[in-house]
Amino acid sequence: MKPKPGDDFIQRRSAQNKTVLQYADKTMKRFLNLDHNAYAEGRLPAKSKELLGLVASLVLRCDDCVKYHLMQCFDQGVTDDELAETLSIGLIVGGSITIPHLRRALEFWDNLK
Amino acid sequence: MKPKPGDDFIQRRSAQNKTVLQYADKTMKRFLNLDHNAYAEGRLPAKSKELLGLVASLVLRCDDCVKYHLMQCFDQGVTDDELAETLSIGLIVGGSITIPHLRRALEFWDNLK
Amino acid sequence: MKPKPGDDFIQRRSAQNKTVLQYADKTMKRFLNLDHNAYAEGRLPAKSKELLGLVASLVLRCDDCVKYHLMQCFDQGVTDDELAETLSIGLIVGGSITIPHLRRALEFWDNLK
Amino acid sequence: MKPKPGDDFIQRRSAQNKTVLQYADKTMKRFLNLDHNAYAEGRLPAKSKELLGLVASLVLRCDDCVKYHLMQCFDQGVTDDELAETLSIGLIVGGSITIPHLRRALEFWDNLK
Amino acid sequence: MKPKPGDDFIQRRSAQNKTVLQYADKTMKRFLNLDHNAYAEGRLPAKSKELLGLVASLVLRCDDCVKYHLMQCFDQGVTDDELAETLSIGLIVGGSITIPHLRRALEFWDNLK
Amino acid sequence: MKPKPGDDFIQRRSAQNKTVLQYADKTMKRFLNLDHNAYAEGRLPAKSKELLGLVASLVLRCDDCVKYHLMQCFDQGVTDDELAETLSIGLIVGGSITIPHLRRALEFWDNLK
Repeated sequence: MKPKPGDDFIQRRSAQNKTVLQYADKTMKRFLNLDHNAYAEGRLPAKSKELLGLVASLVLRCDDCVKYHLMQCFDQGVTDDELAETLSIGLIVGGSITIPHLRRALEFWDNLK
Repeated sequence: MKPKPGDDFIQRRSAQNKTVLQYADKTMKRFLNLDHNAYAEGRLPAKSKELLGLVASLVLRCDDCVKYHLMQCFDQGVTDDELAETLSIGLIVGGSITIPHLRRALEFWDNLK
Repeated sequence: MKPKPGDDFIQRRSAQNKTVLQYADKTMKRFLNLDHNAYAEGRLPAKSKELLGLVASLVLRCDDCVKYHLMQCFDQGVTDDELAETLSIGLIVGGSITIPHLRRALEFWDNLK
Repeated sequence: MKPKPGDDFIQRRSAQNKTVLQYADKTMKRFLNLDHNAYAEGRLPAKSKELLGLVASLVLRCDDCVKYHLMQCFDQGVTDDELAETLSIGLIVGGSITIPHLRRALEFWDNLK
Repeated sequence: MKPKPGDDFIQRRSAQNKTVLQYADKTMKRFLNLDHNAYAEGRLPAKSKELLGLVASLVLRCDDCVKYHLMQCFDQGVTDDELAETLSIGLIVGGSITIPHLRRALEFWDNLK
Repeated sequence: MKPKPGDDFIQRRSAQNKTVLQYADKTMKRFLNLDHNAYAEGRLPAKSKELLGLVASLVLRCDDCVKYHLMQCFDQGVTDDELAETLSIGLIVGGSITIPHLRRALEFWDNLK
């Protein structure tokens, strides 16, 4: 079976997560758990929450976080137009300093599809 | 007529905007215009865009920006639960350093209602 | 009884915390709890953890967070010299942009004593 | 003699600086000295250096730092147009999150004149 | 013809820009255009504007942005001494956290020449 | 002799430092010197200072800075538990945006041992 784009990213992440859990104290474990749960379907749909996570990751300029939320957005059926509007808000709020992250985000999205 | 909460904030902002326009060059004017348009109803509803603006403002820790988007969220009919879920994502992404801004955000929201 | 420096800060904070809890969802409540527990005595003494919280707050330039950790440092018996060395590391790491926060930090500390 | 705009800011700053020096260790003192010298006339004119300090302060969103450099820019004869172009670059690089700081910057500049 | 240092960087950037334009909405396109125009010769010479862009990029710690402005600075005839003074201001404002970016900046500059 | 983990990192860093010194002006040289001295044994033990440097680097999300302080922490005899508690404070203060840096930090630490 051919590897899908993003597989690489997921594998590295998964290996690193094992190392994290090996060293993690209770605070760290609880936080990681809390982080996971924050995006669960609630009053806001899971899709909206992923877009919130995406825009927050873009303005804080974290490529790995952007990639992770792009994969979730893809699974949630976010369209190209919805993505563009979300990233545009991030770009306006965060300024030109986010452009290199925007480039890598859209390159990753283009490969995902 | 009794002043509404947020009136104060709007008035100061509006006076400052006049000063900005007095000094602004073309780049500045265009950016301000672009910023205004980025939140208009599109493929994503205006309400979703305001929540995106809010979470971006919280993680970047800008009280004035948070207040502005809270007022827009209020006008768009965002509920307490939707607000809490949005701010929670900002809190998880941005960490405890956002707590003072979260406090001021919810104090402002409580006054708005 | 004469009010002590910092009383004002604590009162406002405590009133705001009530508002936060009124709106908080489960994620927010859990995070606030986790944040509280992260500074408890562990393998590292509580005093060391407060200094870690202080330097992190200074480089991220959050005045309220700095004040909070200064009060905890004061209760943990941090000396003037230990404080200066901690703030100096924050200043070197974070640069001159932290200076206004450093000024307010030392003004607050001076009042605390 | 009528107080000039900015006098207030300078006085508070100067009082705080005394407190800083009272607690400062050698590292802190050396850094403050280094910070002062970095803007001295060199291969780049002092005026250019103040504009560099201003744009860095704006994108890092430090109001006190912005005010300080605005006063230096004023003394160096920076014109309204040069100021607008400098702030516009900061706005484009730093995004809409800098707008509240831009508003306060131009309000302060308007009072200075 | 031998490839010049920076060619690699420009090629990747240019390929990514094509992907960006493929997904960009009107807001994104306008911002990219505005960003491009902000550095045009005005009351401040283009060279001064590139130095402003460089220092803003350094304190915000964006390697790609730093590289881009270094190439523009090189084309504008910025000297080694002018560059050092500009980067020093960024280092003082932004602190030791900018040092890894400073290292990569000067390595890139050294290759450009 | 087998290369130790971190050797690679140190070599690149050392080569880049030579380039930095080649271009550095007096301000830059003095800052680099000051940065080096800030972590020397003082009223606070060198080990505590390295933990302060580490947490500051994590919340500011600088991988190279984190790696450098991890190597110093290792030399100062920091235990796994002390490291976990320090990183947990950084994670709580800085939020989920620090997680990718936390992963790389613990991967590096695991290799160091």
